[in-house]
Amino acid sequence: MCELLAMSANTPTDICFSFTGLMQRGGNTGPHKDGWGITFYEGRGCRTFKDPLPSIESKIATLVTDYPIKSTSVICHIRQANAGPICLENTHPFTRNMWGENWSYAHNGQLSNYKEVMPVKAHIPVGDTDSEYAFCYILDQLHYEFGANEPDPHVLFQFIAKQCHKINHLGVFNITLTNGKYLFTYCSNNLHWLTRQAPFGKAQLIDAELTVDFQQHAGENDIITVIATQPLTSNEQWLKMESTEWILFHLGEKVLSGRGI
Amino acid sequence: MCELLAMSANTPTDICFSFTGLMQRGGNTGPHKDGWGITFYEGRGCRTFKDPLPSIESKIATLVTDYPIKSTSVICHIRQANAGPICLENTHPFTRNMWGENWSYAHNGQLSNYKEVMPVKAHIPVGDTDSEYAFCYILDQLHYEFGANEPDPHVLFQFIAKQCHKINHLGVFNITLTNGKYLFTYCSNNLHWLTRQAPFGKAQLIDAELTVDFQQHAGENDIITVIATQPLTSNEQWLKMESTEWILFHLGEKVLSGRGI
Repeated sequence: MCELLAMSANTPTDICFSFTGLMQRGGNTGPHKDGWGITFYEGRGCRTFKDPLPSIESKIATLVTDYPIKSTSVICHIRQANAGPICLENTHPFTRNMWGENWSYAHNGQLSNYKEVMPVKAHIPVGDTDSEYAFCYILDQLHYEFGANEPDPHVLFQFIAKQCHKINHLGVFNITLTNGKYLFTYCSNNLHWLTRQAPFGKAQLIDAELTVDFQQHAGENDIITVIATQPLTSNEQWLKMESTEWILFHLGEKVLSGRGI
Repeated sequence: MCELLAMSANTPTDICFSFTGLMQRGGNTGPHKDGWGITFYEGRGCRTFKDPLPSIESKIATLVTDYPIKSTSVICHIRQANAGPICLENTHPFTRNMWGENWSYAHNGQLSNYKEVMPVKAHIPVGDTDSEYAFCYILDQLHYEFGANEPDPHVLFQFIAKQCHKINHLGVFNITLTNGKYLFTYCSNNLHWLTRQAPFGKAQLIDAELTVDFQQHAGENDIITVIATQPLTSNEQWLKMESTEWILFHLGEKVLSGRGI
């Protein structure tokens, strides 16, 4: 399997603290050593750092830990390969363009018989993973449903949730998906989240000897939501998502959610 | 303006030496301090490091200098902004997917009236540059000409060259474009290249006190072509491309070329 990490914030915020915890799970405190990647949105642009090496051994991961890139939307993934060999084209996150926006996506889980059930035509995968294939399928569905016109976010993300429910029937489908403005999460069986806002407190990582006092770092009006497969801190209240639950975050806040039926 | 750098090789090769020279021109020996980026292909995958900071001040550029990533196809760009503000979405290279391949592109030059002459529909730019717009235009033309079926490389790159000739009438259009397997260059007014192969010799950078003896590093059968806006070394024979000349490289070798008429 794999682990996911994502952030939505109302002010550009770095993710060094959470990433420091997660990267330990890529070969040290966890078995997810088949590559890792992280995508930061800054304005309409985004940049991805990725490496097929274990995060714990990756010089690029060390740079990301030490170099605070401030963003309002981040998604991150550490991989334990099941479908597709360990190589760059199978390393998440995946990014594609749609409606003049960068869309990025990462997946934790495994799908069966997906090629038979979900044909793709307009968006062809580069690598071999079920994950990238499912992303291409979602983009294809958006393309055929809405064409050149991006719909209202309510319509758009309800439609995306519907696709996720469909895909979820083929296996395990925990995902994070963002266009930089909105961050969408779908839970098949394993996702947690929490929102940090005033009054801020201290947080202690589970996977490393590191504590941060957010009162020293965050502004009074900051709202920062972190999503992770498993809680990253030992002294905060993480909310566990339900199976088939999806949540849409915007500027750190939950703005829309639902469940499969 | 900006400067371009690219490499095509028949064996995975790092570009640390050439990049060390080029990055000096991003704020030290040259004025191209409005961001930089580099895309490495490894197998079917690619990864891009980019920063809106001057390369000479960028910690990410320092990592790229020190960390030898081996690739058979690389494109790189340092920016001196003319169209579009300094920000991540306007930072080259740009990467998009076509036919299940990653296509990456960088541009040096400036275009006028391009929106009137070159409408885009299927590929919408994210940022504000004439450069990204022209890339979207080329992809649109490929999409409408060939649909879902990637043509033979001869047909494909002759068609791309034809689009470049058209775009070149709107200003200055020096570009590098790659799908990882083939590296295409179009010269409007300013591009140089050289091929290194046995017997290998020493090379001395123009922009930094650095000499490398390729005989110590390269294998006997290695063929490595480097393309750059301006020569990067002082003691090698760089070939200057003609105006409207285009060259296609494959595994380090020139395999096709032509001129506008």
